[in-house]
Amino acid sequence: MVKNKVLLLGATGETGGDILNGLVEDGSFDVACLVRPSSASSAAVQELSTRGHNIVVVDLKGSFEKLVEAVRGYDTIISAIGAPDQTQQLELVDAAAAAGTKRFVPCAFMTVCPPGGIIGSRDDKESVYQRIWYHHLPYTIIDIGFWHQASVPRLASGRIDSKLIVARNEIYADGNVKSMLSDKRDIGRWVARIVQDERTINKKVFAHSEFLSQNDIVRIVEEKSGEKLELTHLSTTELKARREKAWADYVADPTSISKRLLRSIDDYNVSKYIRQDDTPENAKYLGYLDARELYPDVKTIGFAEFMDDFLADKIKRPYEGKHIGLMKPTQK
Amino acid sequence: MVKNKVLLLGATGETGGDILNGLVEDGSFDVACLVRPSSASSAAVQELSTRGHNIVVVDLKGSFEKLVEAVRGYDTIISAIGAPDQTQQLELVDAAAAAGTKRFVPCAFMTVCPPGGIIGSRDDKESVYQRIWYHHLPYTIIDIGFWHQASVPRLASGRIDSKLIVARNEIYADGNVKSMLSDKRDIGRWVARIVQDERTINKKVFAHSEFLSQNDIVRIVEEKSGEKLELTHLSTTELKARREKAWADYVADPTSISKRLLRSIDDYNVSKYIRQDDTPENAKYLGYLDARELYPDVKTIGFAEFMDDFLADKIKRPYEGKHIGLMKPTQK
Repeated sequence: MVKNKVLLLGATGETGGDILNGLVEDGSFDVACLVRPSSASSAAVQELSTRGHNIVVVDLKGSFEKLVEAVRGYDTIISAIGAPDQTQQLELVDAAAAAGTKRFVPCAFMTVCPPGGIIGSRDDKESVYQRIWYHHLPYTIIDIGFWHQASVPRLASGRIDSKLIVARNEIYADGNVKSMLSDKRDIGRWVARIVQDERTINKKVFAHSEFLSQNDIVRIVEEKSGEKLELTHLSTTELKARREKAWADYVADPTSISKRLLRSIDDYNVSKYIRQDDTPENAKYLGYLDARELYPDVKTIGFAEFMDDFLADKIKRPYEGKHIGLMKPTQK
Repeated sequence: MVKNKVLLLGATGETGGDILNGLVEDGSFDVACLVRPSSASSAAVQELSTRGHNIVVVDLKGSFEKLVEAVRGYDTIISAIGAPDQTQQLELVDAAAAAGTKRFVPCAFMTVCPPGGIIGSRDDKESVYQRIWYHHLPYTIIDIGFWHQASVPRLASGRIDSKLIVARNEIYADGNVKSMLSDKRDIGRWVARIVQDERTINKKVFAHSEFLSQNDIVRIVEEKSGEKLELTHLSTTELKARREKAWADYVADPTSISKRLLRSIDDYNVSKYIRQDDTPENAKYLGYLDARELYPDVKTIGFAEFMDDFLADKIKRPYEGKHIGLMKPTQK
């Protein structure tokens, strides 16, 4: 069987790693990893090579001819690049168009949200999508909601603190607005199905493991942990005001990673919990196909099942070993 | 029968007038006309009233509460506003969302083209579409290609000069690239069908009368007129360079209507004849539905039939009586 030749950017990152796992598990793909020179000699890239993946080292901002040559010959290019680096994809899109790539999967992999000043990085992604359309390049956009792995609140005992990445334990408005969640382990499985399906060419697709409110998550975590959560309640007005301030702080200091993150966190909070952007209904309104309808046989990992694994210490902490400035328990 | 209550903005303009005619001809609609205070007492508005349409006078940039009240109670709002005024729709979108409008049809009605720096007014429209998505407002976007009425070249005899609005008689590259055209008389018929169809809710739709190249048009006009056209040929490079210069001239003098028009004309020329954006294939790539597939019974007016009417003096010159600075025959 001739395998689908995939070139994956970001395989050493969180989403890229999840996608790589899903593609390998599926077995239909021959996956090479596109690596930027700055990380070519890293241990993580070495490990990709040891796992049998071709490593393609190329500078996205260097010679355009070299970039075109590097991406030529792959059926599918999948990009999973860090949130602040979205616009680094622009030249990759140009190169994919020049090389005649049959399907370009840009770095979406976020909650469903329209462009236009709601979530900052969504607008960065839009500029990449516009470049795709500029070239008439075949594409698939895949959004997946918010990670289970980034949705665990802090336990009062402190026993899971070392495994949390965001732990504000805040409930916005009445806590009953639902949004879409995915277990990171499901993402690659969805992507493997989506990128070998002709129905998804030139489409947006949303894929999610669960559709839960904050109160649903609290209930599951309290039940699984046996602990009563300590929660802070913020009104819609308070949350929107904090987002405004986070934006002002960021605009005043745009190279600050922590200010970018604080801005981004409240962009997501307002979009998910106030605006209700990240729902199946809104995704369909925005023209997305539903992966659950396309692949009804796919079994996903619900949040309760995930919490069992999490409390049994079977879940890898995202960004392990990296300081990303997000872990700040604000309780007590 | 309960009629679909439509509020139409721009009914005294070219596209809005075409839409009004189509809605009235269809018979399923009760059409009121939204009029800005600046034109409330014009003869054109008086004529709309005489034809039996309710006139709703409201300032788009005035009291938001008054605007919401003005648009409340209509099933459908259709906007056909002048090219330079696209962003005046933003508050109208906000008001439609507040009033619970069931379908908002923003002012698209242009050639098919993606956003992102290709056609300036397309990007203005995109900001309006983003505002629609911001509100989760039900919508339909309708694009129609370029008007037959704006595609007639100059005859060397000069006998049709007074009826032309653009008459450069230029052929770009080899002249064989096809793009979509609509007779203005077809636009309203398409719109009437599209806005009463549940299949088109939250969709983009393209509707066109013909799909022709510049050489096709030359052949038809020469055959119908019996005159040999005098043509100027521009290479891709020459056309792109002229567009670049037109943009630079416009940016240096952004309030100049003529510079805006010259920029806009070459935006369209490059998009249609070089980039090949305005094709059924590209429309489908961009997610549009095809009105010809949705309504196979609709009979459209082809360019040859249009030319018969044009040469028989049966076609109204667009923008009649208005000086828009476009008529500049460059031959001899």
